Amino acid sequence: MTSETVFQFIGGDSGQWRIKQMQPVIGKGLMKAQYLKIVPAVYDIPVTGQWVLTGIKSNIRYTNKSEKEALQKIQASLGRSEAGYAALIPIKKSEAWWNLAQDERREIIEEKSKHIAIGLKYLPAIARQLYHCRDIGGEFDFLTWFEFSPEHTNAFNELLALLRSTSEWEYVEREVDIRLVRGA
Amino acid sequence: MTSETVFQFIGGDSGQWRIKQMQPVIGKGLMKAQYLKIVPAVYDIPVTGQWVLTGIKSNIRYTNKSEKEALQKIQASLGRSEAGYAALIPIKKSEAWWNLAQDERREIIEEKSKHIAIGLKYLPAIARQLYHCRDIGGEFDFLTWFEFSPEHTNAFNELLALLRSTSEWEYVEREVDIRLVRGA
Repeated sequence: MTSETVFQFIGGDSGQWRIKQMQPVIGKGLMKAQYLKIVPAVYDIPVTGQWVLTGIKSNIRYTNKSEKEALQKIQASLGRSEAGYAALIPIKKSEAWWNLAQDERREIIEEKSKHIAIGLKYLPAIARQLYHCRDIGGEFDFLTWFEFSPEHTNAFNELLALLRSTSEWEYVEREVDIRLVRGA
Repeated sequence: MTSETVFQFIGGDSGQWRIKQMQPVIGKGLMKAQYLKIVPAVYDIPVTGQWVLTGIKSNIRYTNKSEKEALQKIQASLGRSEAGYAALIPIKKSEAWWNLAQDERREIIEEKSKHIAIGLKYLPAIARQLYHCRDIGGEFDFLTWFEFSPEHTNAFNELLALLRSTSEWEYVEREVDIRLVRGA
């Protein structure tokens, strides 16, 4: 059975994306791999690779109506032919983060850190998709995925620098930055 | 491997709880079963029963800091010896619900429907635990679990009647009500 919401990110010797660079940003990194394969989870066939990260597309958790509408007006879809570059950035937040109430997390994410507003500023150049993994016991809480064309690499690095400087990032206890090139 | 957050609710011919009554409230019911077994999910052993529902304990999604503190002061834990009765109420909400933004869902759940305040009113008599299943592709979105002593049955029925009369419940498209007796 193949899932429509659960995806596996497999670092190994083959895949749709070539890994150009991998580096630990906070905490432990991941084993070196040459390619990344992304496939819908198939429950009855085991997969192998240097590493396998599983993530779930879910409903939005913090975005308000007005922000959702602003995002929908401008958002870019994945798989655009000009978006030859991608980044996979798995993130784990601390137990202190997960013990906060919903309004406390929202306050840090948006009112203090402007996470949603920052992402909006780089649309439609940087297309994004969030996958959740904390609830299924993964070693990360989220797999964040970005696609952009090579000329937007600097803009993407700026987006990351802005996010990493926020109060929200004080709760990040593991982060790995993996850069990819499509099909090569 | 056994999970600490993922649990299976197995309707079959053995288990810690005897099923006293099962009825569909909204939409399709579940097949008749005599006992309910609750076990931590074991990934490499298939389980069998009339039905198997899988749910995940997760972080809170709507509760604010003040509400969280009020709940923590009064909440009751599961497994109290006097709580000989339980109810398992699997629920599925509509796509319209899941397409709402976070602030719209919070507005319906609490500002309009008083879901958190209603639950608080019946604590510590009615102990509760929420399990999530939408993200793992279950046939329900949530498994709601309640434990109480037999003399609080009327209070529990009142709690359900209040919740079912709210605006939030207009988004419920499937609900099954399963009543249980411990160990019998």
